Amino acid sequence: MKSSTRYRIIPALFALLACHSLSGENGYRLWLRYDTIHDTVVLQAYHSALKQIMVEGHSGTLNAVIEELQNGLSGMLGQEIPLVSETITEGTLLIGTPASSDRIAALPVKDLLRRTGNDGFIIKTCLVSGKKCIVITANEDLGLMYGTFHFLRFLQTRQQIADIDVVSVPSVQFRLLNHWDNLNRTVERGYAGCSLWDWLLLPDTVSPRYKDYARANASIGINGAVLTNVNADALVLTPQYLEKTAALAEVFRPYGIKVYLTARFSAPVEVGGLSTADPLDPQVIDWWQKKADEIYRQIPDFGGFLVKANSEGQPGPQNYGRTHAEGANMLARALAPHGGIVMWRAFVYDSNVPEDRAKQAYDEFKPLDGKFSSNVFIQVKNGPIDFQPREPFHPLFGSMPGTPLMMEFQLTQEYLGQGTHLVYLAPLFKECLQSDTYAKGKGSEVARIIDGTLENHTITGMAGVSNIGTDSDWCGHPFAQSNWYAFGRLSWDLSLTADTIAEEWLRMTFTNNETFVIPVKQMMMGSREYAVNYMTPLGLHHIMARDHHHGPGPWVSEGRPDWTSVYYHRADTAGVGFDRTASGSDALSQYFPEVKQQYENPDSCPETLLLWFHHLPWDYRMTTGRTLWEELCHRYYEGADSVKKMQQTWKSLEGLIDKERFEQVNAMLSIQLKEAGWWRDACVLYFQSFSHRPIPEELEKPARSLEYYRNIKEPTIPGI
Amino acid sequence: MKSSTRYRIIPALFALLACHSLSGENGYRLWLRYDTIHDTVVLQAYHSALKQIMVEGHSGTLNAVIEELQNGLSGMLGQEIPLVSETITEGTLLIGTPASSDRIAALPVKDLLRRTGNDGFIIKTCLVSGKKCIVITANEDLGLMYGTFHFLRFLQTRQQIADIDVVSVPSVQFRLLNHWDNLNRTVERGYAGCSLWDWLLLPDTVSPRYKDYARANASIGINGAVLTNVNADALVLTPQYLEKTAALAEVFRPYGIKVYLTARFSAPVEVGGLSTADPLDPQVIDWWQKKADEIYRQIPDFGGFLVKANSEGQPGPQNYGRTHAEGANMLARALAPHGGIVMWRAFVYDSNVPEDRAKQAYDEFKPLDGKFSSNVFIQVKNGPIDFQPREPFHPLFGSMPGTPLMMEFQLTQEYLGQGTHLVYLAPLFKECLQSDTYAKGKGSEVARIIDGTLENHTITGMAGVSNIGTDSDWCGHPFAQSNWYAFGRLSWDLSLTADTIAEEWLRMTFTNNETFVIPVKQMMMGSREYAVNYMTPLGLHHIMARDHHHGPGPWVSEGRPDWTSVYYHRADTAGVGFDRTASGSDALSQYFPEVKQQYENPDSCPETLLLWFHHLPWDYRMTTGRTLWEELCHRYYEGADSVKKMQQTWKSLEGLIDKERFEQVNAMLSIQLKEAGWWRDACVLYFQSFSHRPIPEELEKPARSLEYYRNIKEPTIPGI
Repeated sequence: MKSSTRYRIIPALFALLACHSLSGENGYRLWLRYDTIHDTVVLQAYHSALKQIMVEGHSGTLNAVIEELQNGLSGMLGQEIPLVSETITEGTLLIGTPASSDRIAALPVKDLLRRTGNDGFIIKTCLVSGKKCIVITANEDLGLMYGTFHFLRFLQTRQQIADIDVVSVPSVQFRLLNHWDNLNRTVERGYAGCSLWDWLLLPDTVSPRYKDYARANASIGINGAVLTNVNADALVLTPQYLEKTAALAEVFRPYGIKVYLTARFSAPVEVGGLSTADPLDPQVIDWWQKKADEIYRQIPDFGGFLVKANSEGQPGPQNYGRTHAEGANMLARALAPHGGIVMWRAFVYDSNVPEDRAKQAYDEFKPLDGKFSSNVFIQVKNGPIDFQPREPFHPLFGSMPGTPLMMEFQLTQEYLGQGTHLVYLAPLFKECLQSDTYAKGKGSEVARIIDGTLENHTITGMAGVSNIGTDSDWCGHPFAQSNWYAFGRLSWDLSLTADTIAEEWLRMTFTNNETFVIPVKQMMMGSREYAVNYMTPLGLHHIMARDHHHGPGPWVSEGRPDWTSVYYHRADTAGVGFDRTASGSDALSQYFPEVKQQYENPDSCPETLLLWFHHLPWDYRMTTGRTLWEELCHRYYEGADSVKKMQQTWKSLEGLIDKERFEQVNAMLSIQLKEAGWWRDACVLYFQSFSHRPIPEELEKPARSLEYYRNIKEPTIPGI
Repeated sequence: MKSSTRYRIIPALFALLACHSLSGENGYRLWLRYDTIHDTVVLQAYHSALKQIMVEGHSGTLNAVIEELQNGLSGMLGQEIPLVSETITEGTLLIGTPASSDRIAALPVKDLLRRTGNDGFIIKTCLVSGKKCIVITANEDLGLMYGTFHFLRFLQTRQQIADIDVVSVPSVQFRLLNHWDNLNRTVERGYAGCSLWDWLLLPDTVSPRYKDYARANASIGINGAVLTNVNADALVLTPQYLEKTAALAEVFRPYGIKVYLTARFSAPVEVGGLSTADPLDPQVIDWWQKKADEIYRQIPDFGGFLVKANSEGQPGPQNYGRTHAEGANMLARALAPHGGIVMWRAFVYDSNVPEDRAKQAYDEFKPLDGKFSSNVFIQVKNGPIDFQPREPFHPLFGSMPGTPLMMEFQLTQEYLGQGTHLVYLAPLFKECLQSDTYAKGKGSEVARIIDGTLENHTITGMAGVSNIGTDSDWCGHPFAQSNWYAFGRLSWDLSLTADTIAEEWLRMTFTNNETFVIPVKQMMMGSREYAVNYMTPLGLHHIMARDHHHGPGPWVSEGRPDWTSVYYHRADTAGVGFDRTASGSDALSQYFPEVKQQYENPDSCPETLLLWFHHLPWDYRMTTGRTLWEELCHRYYEGADSVKKMQQTWKSLEGLIDKERFEQVNAMLSIQLKEAGWWRDACVLYFQSFSHRPIPEELEKPARSLEYYRNIKEPTIPGI
């Protein structure tokens, strides 16, 4: 009844509350945060080097460059940096191509520009009219945009800009996001809300978010987006939807993002009124040509088609007794006059269950090497199964020297904790890219196949299956943004390390405070291995729950065999693992001899891939001295323990970043810890039912029974 | 090549750009915007009346009151208003109940508080310890919260607060939102993104948005939320989901929002392992009792169950030969010991196609009047069909005097333009509430049945089917927020006019600038009639496209007859309309004699309902002097023209509100105009195929053919 002192005003708390009622930090800005720099030394250095901006030339892209620079510089420097057009002074940021700017044409950059192509750029401290300036130049306006974002990143990560000398050229030419977005706005394997593309409101309403999407992509070098799901709907090829697609293309154009669509192979039947989609049928050929012409009339810079054919029930040329090459080339010919490309996916498996699904893509595509038109990519997933936490590199890499292969990475964490696990994927990407195929002897890394240098391809590309949706932070989990970022940065520069990218991203996304950056970078760098350990250690794979793939399901055994878990882990009382050596499926023979030789002997096979290639007895002795069974247990427990350590690290950093994202990640880590324990206990108990061996004494026993885990029902997981 | 003057910096533009790159005005704050008041006269008056805040008492609700007050006052007054605990000065805002505050107990408010019940409140300028203060008091802390929001609304709408004297008591006791949200986060008839309820992350992650949802509801008096779809999933009654529901209840509790769930009638079979759901089976009775006990252990203030039974394929007591009353009472008995209620929907129709679907609810429920337990509501839609743009009031109102009827309005615009049309629904709500049923003679308005005064019910309630989702502005269309707001305000005070509510909402949501408020209020007030005109004038109904209900479909004739359009409009060469008089289905006889008498004669039947009750010849003479056919054409054209006028009005107001919402509404109005034309042309051409009469000369002829409209395919409309 009495009043209390509890509510005496505390100004700091008050401010917090007041702030909370506004939108707070919701992650919308991604890594493009231009908050004012508080370090006065840095700020002064930047101010003295950046007194004015001069952008020479006129285009939509240059308007976007100016807008970004003004936002970025005024934000970070805390005051407007004037945009000028006439007088060069000391500290001018001068931007232009030799064609648009006499001042730049007069600089000694011509030789350098011969190496930078269409997208590359130069950032260089130069004397212009006798004044010390920073110059961003390129052959095309788009290069100026990439250079601008690169330059802003310098400031965002607090690098010295007193004497810059950067020449940057992208490693690959096509740097694409693949959206598995359906026209009803659900997203297959998407864990961040609905599809960004509001098909109902397009083209009348163009969300401001489309531009921010384009900005984010351009800032990391991405230059294309396949808007629709590979499990495609032919409706998107009708005039009604092409008009909507054109509206998106218009927003993206200044940022150099081309739109691509997935082409449902049976579209000539479904929306064209034909009775066949046979790629050799003249009417079909004609339909696709007319369709391509129609598309390019509306979208002159349309990128092309991504096709999933004769895989998981999708129609394709094999329905008509034709090959993948005949199907792909028919589409490629329709696009070629307009400069478009076809990306034909190698992820195929048909209704016949193969002896080893890992072999199927190689078996189907290798014989077609050299038979594809010059504007066709074969788009190959990093590994031979399906985006597992760990896979060996795909055996097609190096095996189709006459065909440009496009890398397909999965940024969305279908098999790596979906919407709730902190798993930084750049180490996974790098592991694949750095794998040596030995296709042309030592030094034939996957990266050199992707960037075209090993086989001298004229087109090169990387695709990332995105997890971008309507969630306010775009990706659902604050750290899921890092995988989008890493994909873009890597596709621009395959030589970047996962560590460098993580640090850039952390500095731009959270803070430059090293008390935060250093331990969190460590977390990120370890996180993929932690997930491998608590999910699928030692080369296990494809033991997740059925359909939605959320959580463990090593017991899944019903239905089509190569969609079960038992098909892949082959656990029995003798041991565990898939024998892919000559005594088993012999999938290993799809690799070059040096690789095969290393992997076919369990003793020289990397332990990380042991059970991928070998079925080994439970008492097989590991390098640690433990038996295989003991090691398996230890890995599962280590994985879950690592999550606990991540959680402890994170909690210790409270106050160093905004409360909103701190708490969100904290909550997510709690879920991850719970789910890591779920994976660990379910898998250890399940495999124990074969090994008949005790869980090593030093490890805590699972609190629940295998039955408990087998009975978990999750019918409402998003992202299917 | 030359630099230009185009980029010379213009500070205002620069500021705009800088602002745009942040999140801008995204509508997230709804009507709870506390931006600083710039009118110095108003500001000074408020400052002198509000020098300090004193809140006496301790509870979660009072913490929320303090937080809201501090945000609101510091925001609007531009400085912190200190929270004090000891000394009353002139200009204190004193908040407490007589039980928590001796100061308030000493004031002469006891008599008033006898009338305010649990939720009501008093706001009054009083002398406290001889100082002039504003006092907010109530019997319960929740009343203080409602009073606080009411007081903040005074300031938000710039009302005088020098001498306040308000006593406010809610018209009805249960003021509930119904969310038709599925567990997979799709929303049936939702046009604003995914379901707010993130079932996968709950209870581990509790989105900050849940609290803002609760704040918004509490601010307009809503005190309950049915979280799940009436087409129910029994899974929500499992322990896994109850734990998640409890986490939401905990966030909502301080704001007085109780959670309710939809109870799937077959749950005892589906998740209980029983072989029957027969409501008279002892095992079933026991299962529900135990389930209720289990729920209340976790959620002590759980509200109860909403049930859709034996309707559109949902299971119900009739599956076991039992009545609705037997089904509802069985559930009611399980909830009664805990204080819970059952809301049993009257929206029923079974697999037998009735002669007139409009009669079915009355036929099934009237005989059961008086047979329901005292904690059962029958929840009745406003009209006898299904949330059409215009319906007469439901004949059950007034016909079940022994049973409390809960009103069910639809806030989501399933049949009123879905996500893109500006249609303010308060005039529709008021039209129904003000309809006189004549149940106990003249003055027996629907409102008096709902508020319990006509039939002396002890429980009273209103439900609104919401359109709230993950879109950043909650409702998809900025003006869709007004329907949420209007529902809450009306359920608190049935006597409020649609005009008053619109003005409050506009002032709070956009601006107090009357140059904006007055014309936009006019738009809102007309908007529902405009939609009626371009969709279903003169009493036409249920002529929309199949399934998704987006756009016109008067030609829909296949499948179950009472799901077609031709069943309802009955157009033929002789005329159009559904004869519901004694010569037809005689549905009119379900109304009381005074109503029946007025409606059964076309000459005295309101023209707005003419074709609802009568099949009339095309040449029937209307009061305008036009034939029915001509009048129908004129209404369709007037409807579409009105949208054009709304668009012109809106465009003329550019600059008076933020750019973001201005442009969003502008884009939406373009879509609405296009779609109004689509409705008009499709319907006029369709009905012309029966009337065989020309479109009146003064009206522009449709540019496209009926065939064109019949062939529009829209397979990907959201919200199904």
